[in-house]
Amino acid sequence: MCTPGSIPVFESISAADFRSTIQPTRRPAILRGMPVGPCVPAWADLEHLKRHTPNGPVRIHVTTHAHMDFRRKNFQYGTLDFHTLLERASRDPEEAITEPFIDPRELYYLRSVSLDPRSRETVRLERDFPDLAHEFRLPEFFPPDRFFSSVLRVSSPGVRVWTHYDVLDNVYVQVVGRKRAVMWAPSDALNLYLDGDKSRVVDIDQPDLAAFPKFAQATPFEGWLEPGDILFIPAMWFHNMTARDFGVAVNVFWQNLDQGLYDRKDPYGNRDLLPGAKALRMLDNVMKQLEELPEDLKDFYGRQLIARIEKKCLLNEKCPE
Amino acid sequence: MCTPGSIPVFESISAADFRSTIQPTRRPAILRGMPVGPCVPAWADLEHLKRHTPNGPVRIHVTTHAHMDFRRKNFQYGTLDFHTLLERASRDPEEAITEPFIDPRELYYLRSVSLDPRSRETVRLERDFPDLAHEFRLPEFFPPDRFFSSVLRVSSPGVRVWTHYDVLDNVYVQVVGRKRAVMWAPSDALNLYLDGDKSRVVDIDQPDLAAFPKFAQATPFEGWLEPGDILFIPAMWFHNMTARDFGVAVNVFWQNLDQGLYDRKDPYGNRDLLPGAKALRMLDNVMKQLEELPEDLKDFYGRQLIARIEKKCLLNEKCPE
Repeated sequence: MCTPGSIPVFESISAADFRSTIQPTRRPAILRGMPVGPCVPAWADLEHLKRHTPNGPVRIHVTTHAHMDFRRKNFQYGTLDFHTLLERASRDPEEAITEPFIDPRELYYLRSVSLDPRSRETVRLERDFPDLAHEFRLPEFFPPDRFFSSVLRVSSPGVRVWTHYDVLDNVYVQVVGRKRAVMWAPSDALNLYLDGDKSRVVDIDQPDLAAFPKFAQATPFEGWLEPGDILFIPAMWFHNMTARDFGVAVNVFWQNLDQGLYDRKDPYGNRDLLPGAKALRMLDNVMKQLEELPEDLKDFYGRQLIARIEKKCLLNEKCPE
Repeated sequence: MCTPGSIPVFESISAADFRSTIQPTRRPAILRGMPVGPCVPAWADLEHLKRHTPNGPVRIHVTTHAHMDFRRKNFQYGTLDFHTLLERASRDPEEAITEPFIDPRELYYLRSVSLDPRSRETVRLERDFPDLAHEFRLPEFFPPDRFFSSVLRVSSPGVRVWTHYDVLDNVYVQVVGRKRAVMWAPSDALNLYLDGDKSRVVDIDQPDLAAFPKFAQATPFEGWLEPGDILFIPAMWFHNMTARDFGVAVNVFWQNLDQGLYDRKDPYGNRDLLPGAKALRMLDNVMKQLEELPEDLKDFYGRQLIARIEKKCLLNEKCPE
């Protein structure tokens, strides 16, 4: 494995600097001190937040375990009015909830989706939370026609979202509370035991190395987001986000590659790029050819296939700087 | 890596034992003391050999380096009358050759091919060397209709043939001289840096680990063949054979799998099994899909393909016993 590192912090740079010198490196970065509008610190005031948001129902994750586990399903889905969510998520977690879904000490996580279920558009802050959108400004990280979605995220203290990747470049603007980010390069994919876009290694701090031995070879990069910090998450970089406090964030995605490469029916920005998805589908037919061989020869030709992919598709492994 | 081992030696077993308990293990074995006819020791007498063979031209490898290297091409092809080949290959290697191809101390290697170039049949000892065939008897390792080819091999002392695999089960009957065999399991394919059916690691005793680091993880199995010994080489087992002395051997191949799995246009028994060859061809189209992606994403999806093959085709890695 390479030496674990920190996500570099860039202070008071311009959006033009981001486009010319940070984004092309395909490496994560924390951008500190960029202007993001009056949301910082305005949204830290719960009453302000409630005054500037509709109180409609939102779909949420409810969990009694701070570390959500998509495999063991230690959470469930529920619906709360938005203001109730804000009150419950921002309370002292030791304070018991009356009328909980599961447990008086349950925790919440919102990843906003379009409030209009008939809409085929991706989620946009200015459509569902227009007053918040007025108080939020994103530096010009990308041409406006490349915009994909802007997602509001609300977390109870401690809530951790499992390690996963997105197929779009995105910036995670932390507005309220602090958050810990742990990231891995796309080249660590084989060390993360993927299940689709998610890593099966849920406990990243005390991993089960008997079950996931290669995880020890993965190289984590860690950083802390303060209110107002912007985390650049390059497409395909694995990220694991843990709220230290009650958290509110806006996560903005854009299509950084040729637009024809993206799946048009992808509201969340995590469906595989079309060439990748097609390759994976086609591979199933390749492997079907080997079904008629005895197990040892299927293994043998499986290794031959792997050797050819390593030779033709993989970059030389080197440690990220 | 696993612990390097020895190829086990089985003394005086029967052909039925071979079929019931050795061949199904898919592991190499040296069978010692089985009846192979009067060829041992008759062929050790050069004059006897010459009296019982036609003196037609044969195609040979000529090399000044005992360790033949198919990548650096440190050998060339030539044609000699069979008796001249026998005389030259069996001489003291310090003795200079008059009218050499390359060098007075050159070495020779014959892997017999059909003497009738118009024949589409595979090579058969009884057709090209009928008097030798009379003196050679193979225990009934396989049903007669599964026979594929019987290859006569003649080597100067020291000549080493590069590590490669064959797609058919075969027995290597050492008749004259001693030979060192080093073998690796099919599951070591990725550690052997294959170029088709051959390993690019030519010097297996002092490997260039800077160029071939994974070779250090490969597990060699070693054995010595004495005159009369029979080495069972299961299909896909990598083998590297070095003649210690002037050597004569008969290598018999048979179709151990469903006959429809073999390439019909394969005189040497080293063309990939049809399902494997088809899978490898199809994989090229899979990888073509990824061409339109940037290098880092091609790498990313390449790793996803590998992860899927590992999951669906590979056996759990464990050390061979």
